[in-house]
Amino acid sequence: MIDQLMEKIEETRNPTLIGLDTTLALIPKELVEEYQGMGENPLEGTLEAILAFNKEIIRHIKEVVPAVKIQIAMYEQYGWQGIRVYQKTVEYAKEKGLLVIGDIKRGDILSTAEAYAAHIGRAPVNGGVVDSWGEDWVTVNPYFGTDGMLPFLQNCQKYKKGIFVLVKTSNPSGEEIQDLSCGDHKLYEIVGSLVEQWGENLKGRNGYSSVGAVVGATQPEQGARLRQQMPHTFFLVPGYGIQGGNGAWLKNYFDEEGRGAIIHSARAILSAHLDRRKYRWNQYGEAALAAAIKMKEEVVGCIR
Amino acid sequence: MIDQLMEKIEETRNPTLIGLDTTLALIPKELVEEYQGMGENPLEGTLEAILAFNKEIIRHIKEVVPAVKIQIAMYEQYGWQGIRVYQKTVEYAKEKGLLVIGDIKRGDILSTAEAYAAHIGRAPVNGGVVDSWGEDWVTVNPYFGTDGMLPFLQNCQKYKKGIFVLVKTSNPSGEEIQDLSCGDHKLYEIVGSLVEQWGENLKGRNGYSSVGAVVGATQPEQGARLRQQMPHTFFLVPGYGIQGGNGAWLKNYFDEEGRGAIIHSARAILSAHLDRRKYRWNQYGEAALAAAIKMKEEVVGCIR
Repeated sequence: MIDQLMEKIEETRNPTLIGLDTTLALIPKELVEEYQGMGENPLEGTLEAILAFNKEIIRHIKEVVPAVKIQIAMYEQYGWQGIRVYQKTVEYAKEKGLLVIGDIKRGDILSTAEAYAAHIGRAPVNGGVVDSWGEDWVTVNPYFGTDGMLPFLQNCQKYKKGIFVLVKTSNPSGEEIQDLSCGDHKLYEIVGSLVEQWGENLKGRNGYSSVGAVVGATQPEQGARLRQQMPHTFFLVPGYGIQGGNGAWLKNYFDEEGRGAIIHSARAILSAHLDRRKYRWNQYGEAALAAAIKMKEEVVGCIR
Repeated sequence: MIDQLMEKIEETRNPTLIGLDTTLALIPKELVEEYQGMGENPLEGTLEAILAFNKEIIRHIKEVVPAVKIQIAMYEQYGWQGIRVYQKTVEYAKEKGLLVIGDIKRGDILSTAEAYAAHIGRAPVNGGVVDSWGEDWVTVNPYFGTDGMLPFLQNCQKYKKGIFVLVKTSNPSGEEIQDLSCGDHKLYEIVGSLVEQWGENLKGRNGYSSVGAVVGATQPEQGARLRQQMPHTFFLVPGYGIQGGNGAWLKNYFDEEGRGAIIHSARAILSAHLDRRKYRWNQYGEAALAAAIKMKEEVVGCIR
């Protein structure tokens, strides 16, 4: 799977991806009103509006970005109906040729992790198995150690999928746990070493493995150290929008060939349409595309 | 919420709960066959069988146990249709008077954690909010630190709910991360201190708070130390079935009044019917009840 991701990045010349963390607050109220009354209750109308928004964004950005990351929490908050819209979004993005990272941050002990690993695998039904989810990659929480990771690693192998393990998250209080000093190392560095081990048998053509890491963009010097410490681990980097700036620090997350990372932005892209001097309410697709191209150019400019 | 849980435990005189971690392998094949052909595909038949199994178990155990813990992964492996069966199981258990712990192990950074916290709160729709989930308690992963916890804590307050934070899981390789030495303490002890802080404003009548901890039953001496270190934290203790034995060690998880913990078992209860010398295939409800009573007696015997 890592080869496929790196090829898509080459092909689009774009080491960034867009997060479909779609919330009611981010979509035009006109669109919400349009879908209001569809379905049997406000929930159904809201969800239809979210799906329509996602599809329009995907149609506009599909040739420009290699992948989308879909934050399941934003859908899960609406119960099974929300999950259904998540799945429809996954399906639509794949149909349009995008790679899909399911940002699910699951993790559990062995037997339960097996069930979660169905996101990138199969689940048993009477007389066979089903492929319920279809994401290409998912994010995984490392708190359970190796045995909680095994079912995901097996599915990476068997179904040519990938995972991004949380190493360093982009929120301020992530430090309370992730930056604890354990002997000579920070906890996140120890998790980083585990991630390198977990990926050992899943390497692709360029030396990177299908076991990637989530490394927040908020502490670039940490990014540089982790880049060195984890030479075979591809980074998914959230927090670009928070850090902002001219982005010279972004280099830290990439290797010398400008590979090894993909930068994530969600809010800045999805909310670009809110600039009413430039866009009418129904131009959220165009606005997202323009924002996505701007981001691509910024990032590519930085890592050259 | 902690008061409600402790009252239910008093009322049933039972500090144990049953995990509805229902998988195809645990339910009678005759039941699966009976539901085969219902619905449009093998998935729907399988899910109907799982739901029927859960309802029968709940009907049998509802007067004996205070609560059930429902492992969402076992349902999530089937996509939104599985999640719908999870929700139907939650609803049915509550209808029958049981408290419901959703074993969801979610966790994320602030804005995303807000969405996950809808499990014990509300989610915004056009013109209002919806209560999509309805669990009384959920389990939460601490890797993100305090800001990832805040939305859950707020909902505990606002909607009278509770959470159990993962402190020490019951799987062997949990040690790789949780038992790292950070200065004078193990990582899980540091998480334990955070949990005590997080619960500070959520204490109930007995001094315990609505911010509990998951503490695996596999290392009783750790249990004893954590019991001392975390005097206001109620423990949810998985791994009883793995540890087995006469259970004298179980005392370690309780306080001197025999309170402060609830012991979890899933597989031993759900699979009790597989003993064909004692039960016909359709007596899985009776078998679960007998196993639940046996467990209750063992545990109560140990902590007296």
